[in-house]
Amino acid sequence: MTLTQLDLTALLDALPQDAVITDPDRMASYLLDRANAPDGGTPAAVVRATCTEDVQAAVRFAVANGLKVVTRGAGSGLSGGATALEGCLMVSTERMREIDIDPRTRTVRVQPGLMNAEVKAEVAKEGLWYPPDPSSYEICSIGGNVATNAGGLCCVKYGVTTDYVLGLTVVLADGTAVTLGGPRIKDKAGLPLVKLFVGSEGTLGIVTEAVLKLLPAQRTPCTMVATFGKLDNATDAVAEIQRGLRPSMLEFMDKACINAVEDLTKMGLDREAEALLVIQSDESTAAAVEELATIEAICQKHHATEVFTTEDPEEGEAFVTARRMAIPAVEAKGSLLLEDVGVPLPQLSALVDGIAAIAANRQVEIAVVAHAGDGNTHPLIVFDPSDADHAARAQQAYGEVMSLAIELGGTITGEHGVGRLKKPWLGAQLGDDAMALNQRIKDALDPTGIFNPGTMFEG
Amino acid sequence: MTLTQLDLTALLDALPQDAVITDPDRMASYLLDRANAPDGGTPAAVVRATCTEDVQAAVRFAVANGLKVVTRGAGSGLSGGATALEGCLMVSTERMREIDIDPRTRTVRVQPGLMNAEVKAEVAKEGLWYPPDPSSYEICSIGGNVATNAGGLCCVKYGVTTDYVLGLTVVLADGTAVTLGGPRIKDKAGLPLVKLFVGSEGTLGIVTEAVLKLLPAQRTPCTMVATFGKLDNATDAVAEIQRGLRPSMLEFMDKACINAVEDLTKMGLDREAEALLVIQSDESTAAAVEELATIEAICQKHHATEVFTTEDPEEGEAFVTARRMAIPAVEAKGSLLLEDVGVPLPQLSALVDGIAAIAANRQVEIAVVAHAGDGNTHPLIVFDPSDADHAARAQQAYGEVMSLAIELGGTITGEHGVGRLKKPWLGAQLGDDAMALNQRIKDALDPTGIFNPGTMFEG
Ligand SMILES: Cc1cc2nc3c(=O)[nH]c(=O)nc-3n(C[C@H](O)[C@H](O)[C@H](O)COP(=O)(O)OP(=O)(O)OC[C@H]3O[C@@H](n4cnc5c(N)ncnc54)[C@H](O)[C@@H]3O)c2cc1C
Ligand SMILES: Cc1cc2nc3c(=O)[nH]c(=O)nc-3n(C[C@H](O)[C@H](O)[C@H](O)COP(=O)(O)OP(=O)(O)OC[C@H]3O[C@@H](n4cnc5c(N)ncnc54)[C@H](O)[C@@H]3O)c2cc1C
Repeated sequence: MTLTQLDLTALLDALPQDAVITDPDRMASYLLDRANAPDGGTPAAVVRATCTEDVQAAVRFAVANGLKVVTRGAGSGLSGGATALEGCLMVSTERMREIDIDPRTRTVRVQPGLMNAEVKAEVAKEGLWYPPDPSSYEICSIGGNVATNAGGLCCVKYGVTTDYVLGLTVVLADGTAVTLGGPRIKDKAGLPLVKLFVGSEGTLGIVTEAVLKLLPAQRTPCTMVATFGKLDNATDAVAEIQRGLRPSMLEFMDKACINAVEDLTKMGLDREAEALLVIQSDESTAAAVEELATIEAICQKHHATEVFTTEDPEEGEAFVTARRMAIPAVEAKGSLLLEDVGVPLPQLSALVDGIAAIAANRQVEIAVVAHAGDGNTHPLIVFDPSDADHAARAQQAYGEVMSLAIELGGTITGEHGVGRLKKPWLGAQLGDDAMALNQRIKDALDPTGIFNPGTMFEG
Repeated sequence: MTLTQLDLTALLDALPQDAVITDPDRMASYLLDRANAPDGGTPAAVVRATCTEDVQAAVRFAVANGLKVVTRGAGSGLSGGATALEGCLMVSTERMREIDIDPRTRTVRVQPGLMNAEVKAEVAKEGLWYPPDPSSYEICSIGGNVATNAGGLCCVKYGVTTDYVLGLTVVLADGTAVTLGGPRIKDKAGLPLVKLFVGSEGTLGIVTEAVLKLLPAQRTPCTMVATFGKLDNATDAVAEIQRGLRPSMLEFMDKACINAVEDLTKMGLDREAEALLVIQSDESTAAAVEELATIEAICQKHHATEVFTTEDPEEGEAFVTARRMAIPAVEAKGSLLLEDVGVPLPQLSALVDGIAAIAANRQVEIAVVAHAGDGNTHPLIVFDPSDADHAARAQQAYGEVMSLAIELGGTITGEHGVGRLKKPWLGAQLGDDAMALNQRIKDALDPTGIFNPGTMFEG
């Protein structure tokens, strides 16, 4: 059906005032996420839901009119999962911002539209901590985090989003809203369906509420920065650290990232270093100092050129901020194809070396930043979009990096999700049987393929 | 088909020597788990598989001959999930005992038949730690732990089994073996299917291999024991401790448990106390002493009658062993109906008080032991099976305790699983929509209901 034929009356009637946007100018900011997927389109309408019932009304309208539904959190996604499709209904969660903290159960009930940083800040007022901390924490929604099972910097010690999701309300493909789990730390009643939705990238249902587990406030961490003249020395140090220790952060930047950040910050990073590690320990002070001393010894053994340790939280935070700036800093150099490949830790050197070889072969620059302790790297492929040949070579490198990760026993995505951009490589990683199993779950929950077609599954 | 009509030749041909047992005497030890479910039967055969292929052969034979398949780990289950059904094929994992530790990725690849304690012991030789520690750790298999998403004592700080499962090989209902995940700490490729199988109680597939995440060896914990004259004081102390601290153990015994354990051990527990807490901190020594001092102050504030702290690991372990003995010690008094209800922590007092009221009303003894920090209690209903009226009242109390937990916003099972025994109460907790969703997943993965009928789902 063409957009002009579509009668929105039923939708408008079911929803609060100004919930439905159809004006192309106003819809413009809802079309793409940070992946800028090339195959997007113009939605029939954007629904700015305020509650579960609004989302149900939107889904039921879509079912009745044969529309596809794409959910949009804050649009910071890097795999194209929040791409508007031609004629789809785009459900935005931006107005779903309620939050209800229960310090007695150490849980928080949230609507999906709050930013990760807002949830962190609110619970901090009660002396509590929501650990998952994607670098994008100020610009990504908690619903998007649940949908992508977002990782981050402290995940090396504290796990990823799924480890903190105790309950969900989800609107299913027929418009039913189902509540799963709740503020119970342990609950084995029925299949573990909460976990099935965390990381399902909006392909199985729309998350309209989440109950998240909280921890007591984190201790102020001590921070170490170590630079290495040789890249392999840094990855070897990472492997040895993780063999026996539990730092609360273990991040990596290569030379290109160091220089891009230094260009912006002028904070005095060593531009000659091939690698820089940012490491934190959040043990009690004496234990943290001891843990970092052990880590320093490991770095020295692997020929670190400089090691700097600080107990001062502001100084420490400056280095973490530098690490968080790596992606935007490199992005300042050109357009990016942003990878998210991961490997078992012993393969980290091989991965980083292999990426350098791909870059040389395809004559593109690839800067690497990594949640190194998890073996999860973000190779940033820099290209000039106005140069078609350059862009094509970048695209080839993008695929080759994923193929390399698969060869090394790794994954095409550690935390950003499959989305639209990585879907072509999913089968090579999972194999036919696991692909078929994914499809069976998709078909069972979304038999007509209404949710996010083209993301993770064929459209 | 009757058993005499069944031709086992194809099965015998496909499997190693002595893998198939049909002798009723030899089958006797494979019929029940610790729940002694009343509705079991005699299997057509027991298959003692040695590898994934053996399990595939068994499932394919079952499909071809219209048999149901029940998987048995070590049979320590408390909800009847490993109950032989009349004419079923019983797949035992007891001979699947391979283990392959990779200290470089801090993971271990195991076959399901190893005991939890064996896995712990093997990885400890490499200075590594597999945290999940059900009280039954010496008598339960790692496959059973995965299938039930087993909890335990350290889970209050370190999470449950699912938090440590990175990869699985599962034999599906058509005999296909699918490998999901692997030794990658973060992997977002596809739906989170590994998590779907953890806790599925053998209803979706048979786990033939698991890749588990390990941690560096735990620090030697410091231990505290606190006794309380009034039960509510103890539960209040638990709630306040969990509000702001992260002990690595927070266990509870009521008066009946204390006395049952004291009867066996004569270790000098206070028989007059209404409640006893066993608490550990595994922070570095100075921080642990500080954490336990804070906890002691909380216990004193809530009128603890005695608080005893020790840094001596053996002394500490003696109290933990006392706690682990609670179930067997109470079992020595009569037959048990073993509950596993959990509530949000603020409802712990109401739950324990309500259980006492049920016990008084039904005139049965109910002893309570609990992983208190998680709000997960094990009310132990003691009865004399030779007294039909007593047994009937125990059965009534069993249901009433679950209904109470549901009323308090809790769960009918925190860690033991639904199995056969708790299935009648599952709908009351989950509601119709969540029940329907469970069934859709079951139907998608096991359309003919071959796996473990009557466990979690209708048979
Ligand atoms: C500079 C930068 C750094 C980043 N660093 C990290 C990092 O360290 N770790 C990390 O994990 N990610 C990182 N990301 C990626 C991104 O921020 C995360 O994937 C984030 O979780 C997306 O949240 P969002 O609200 O922006 O979701 P969106 O981009 O709006 O959507 C992401 C996906 O989730 C679905 N979705 C969103 N909301 C819902 C809902 N309520 N119900 C169902 N489906 C929904 C969408 O359909 C889409 O498939 C980074 C991104 C940027 C730009
Ligand atoms: C004294 C005592 C204390 C206990 N304490 C705890 C505790 O603290 N925490 C806790 O969580 N539990 C506890 N339990 C319960 C029990 O030990 C756990 O449920 C354990 O995980 C069961 O393991 P198992 O190998 O004995 O499994 P079984 O009893 O053999 O089977 C349990 C379920 O898992 C399925 N299953 C087994 N193996 C597989 C497989 N390879 N693939 C698919 N399905 C499979 C079975 O079909 C069944 O449904 C306790 C039990 C006892 C007797």
